[in-house]
Amino acid sequence: MNTIRVNLENKGSSSYNIQIGHGIVDRLGLMIKKEHPAGLYVIITDSRVKNLYGDSFVSLFKNLDLPVEMLVFPAGEESKNMATAMSIIDALISLKADRQTMIIALGGGVVGDLAGFVSSIYLRGIPFLQVPTTLLAQVDSSIGGKTGVDLAAGKNLVGAIYQPRGVFIDTKFLLSLPEREWMNGLAEIVKYGLIEGGEYLALLEENLPALKTRQPEVLHGVIEGACRIKAGFVEIDEQDRGVRRFLNLGHTLGHALEAESGYDMSHGEAVAIGIATGLELSRRHCHLPAEDAKRALTLMDELGVPRTIPGHADTGALMEHMKRDKKRQGQRINFVLLKRLGMPFVTGGVSEQLLIETIEGLKG
Amino acid sequence: MNTIRVNLENKGSSSYNIQIGHGIVDRLGLMIKKEHPAGLYVIITDSRVKNLYGDSFVSLFKNLDLPVEMLVFPAGEESKNMATAMSIIDALISLKADRQTMIIALGGGVVGDLAGFVSSIYLRGIPFLQVPTTLLAQVDSSIGGKTGVDLAAGKNLVGAIYQPRGVFIDTKFLLSLPEREWMNGLAEIVKYGLIEGGEYLALLEENLPALKTRQPEVLHGVIEGACRIKAGFVEIDEQDRGVRRFLNLGHTLGHALEAESGYDMSHGEAVAIGIATGLELSRRHCHLPAEDAKRALTLMDELGVPRTIPGHADTGALMEHMKRDKKRQGQRINFVLLKRLGMPFVTGGVSEQLLIETIEGLKG
Repeated sequence: MNTIRVNLENKGSSSYNIQIGHGIVDRLGLMIKKEHPAGLYVIITDSRVKNLYGDSFVSLFKNLDLPVEMLVFPAGEESKNMATAMSIIDALISLKADRQTMIIALGGGVVGDLAGFVSSIYLRGIPFLQVPTTLLAQVDSSIGGKTGVDLAAGKNLVGAIYQPRGVFIDTKFLLSLPEREWMNGLAEIVKYGLIEGGEYLALLEENLPALKTRQPEVLHGVIEGACRIKAGFVEIDEQDRGVRRFLNLGHTLGHALEAESGYDMSHGEAVAIGIATGLELSRRHCHLPAEDAKRALTLMDELGVPRTIPGHADTGALMEHMKRDKKRQGQRINFVLLKRLGMPFVTGGVSEQLLIETIEGLKG
Repeated sequence: MNTIRVNLENKGSSSYNIQIGHGIVDRLGLMIKKEHPAGLYVIITDSRVKNLYGDSFVSLFKNLDLPVEMLVFPAGEESKNMATAMSIIDALISLKADRQTMIIALGGGVVGDLAGFVSSIYLRGIPFLQVPTTLLAQVDSSIGGKTGVDLAAGKNLVGAIYQPRGVFIDTKFLLSLPEREWMNGLAEIVKYGLIEGGEYLALLEENLPALKTRQPEVLHGVIEGACRIKAGFVEIDEQDRGVRRFLNLGHTLGHALEAESGYDMSHGEAVAIGIATGLELSRRHCHLPAEDAKRALTLMDELGVPRTIPGHADTGALMEHMKRDKKRQGQRINFVLLKRLGMPFVTGGVSEQLLIETIEGLKG
């Protein structure tokens, strides 16, 4: 088991540990009992994760005589809304949950975002832990404290930046992860490789076959590296106003593609295509060297993530979505581009003309 | 005009200034333009404050060609709920409010709590300013970042600790404040006098006639002192887990009295009675000297705040309310008591028996 510390002592949030290992959930009861004492543990999960792991997870607490309850909502992004959040809060009130209660988010990104948001607003904030069960949640959404719910007008329009007290990453969960969920995480891993470059990018390139077959030791290294990169950005820019925005590589167009598809397209597919578009924009807007772009695209192809915009996608509609992005500043659309692999920057200076041409050029 | 700085640099929240003066709102447009530039200013207020000050307040911005919008909800605590919060968020989306938008809470505690909560969760947090128009909001709720809404199960069960970027206190608003609203603030001022003691308590005692007639210079000094005391607690305990809880003197029973009356009793009346009960508990539980208790009760009587529990109040029901207080730890009810004037402490050690006897003894 390895531990990554997220240092936030000077930012008002408490620092916390990300603990990674294969099968660490089996020891979770003991770790939580020792490191996170609470008057009541409330596990929040969705129907899918509950069916897979719910009973055995609850047993970890019951076996140690720790007071535990489980709240379950229907699996799927469509549950990630204010109505679900308020129904969880009503249940917490019924359980007499107080500030000595510890919430435990067991599941993927939707569970973590919802449970974290509920933890941030119930009684003006109670502590919570993340136990991410998907690759996307393990390398991205469980770390850094972004929580939230969707509104009819868009995703994550309501939320908070609220840090967990700890993150427990068990790579064993990934062995049974469906292909689509796996792809969601891979796209983020490609993103880390391109913004970090150097050793992390080389680690990915050198371990492609083992990564694709989910070999536990390689998974451990790849996830630990991703967590270290993300934790580094969160430590220096918890509020996402500066360098943390580099983590949005591929996400400006990615969010637009997801929304425009009515969320038929997965987050991973959309982000991967967004990254490919970012590479082409970087080549044309800021002279990303051709060999860097080729190296990035080779990695994407080897991992099997898509990089072609669907031919039927409406470029005008995508432009409108991007102009409504919640990270926009005034009328400019901000993109994370690359000067070189490992050298990301944020720019609002991409012309609409170039953007439209690039999107059209990447349609397949 | 005087300025009090709330130093939170090391707590993740930005530090901010509380500016106090008589008639400072007339210069607010210029101050905000200079100190708080934004792409759009959205004033959030209630129907009562809008009728009194809405148009002239909006003019402050329009006269300087600053982009401004006003959102109004029906006055009253019954508006302080999630439905109002979500309707404000829908309106912000319609206005294309983004992270360069500045929310301005113009009104009393309900406006500040709602507008602050909306600011804390919209797009995971956008900046806001407080322009409190009641005595209670000026000395208490506008400072320190406590925001929230009520649920059917209780007050402020959902919320956030989210600091404003600045607080502008104009004592001129107080000249037309209804008596009941005035009393709400006076009870908090008594609270500050008792937990601070020393010069602040003497300031109150020496200026009773001028305070009662709302003489602007005395108001300024009394409010500035209250803000300094509160800011001091917030600086060292923003998250309300330690010494900031001293500010809850009178509030444990106060909240129970309010709830038990179906909120017919005002916050100020309830807190004042809660303070009187706290004095009696302090005398019996921790030997508060009789002369200290007498001095405190004299101040309360001079200011005309109540200190008798209504004879029809159901002691058992009050006990149940206190056991559900959101600051409870397990089954113990926490009280702020006084060893001496100016020497508060928090204790969960008051026996139920003593509490019941004290409540019964204070019934009128």
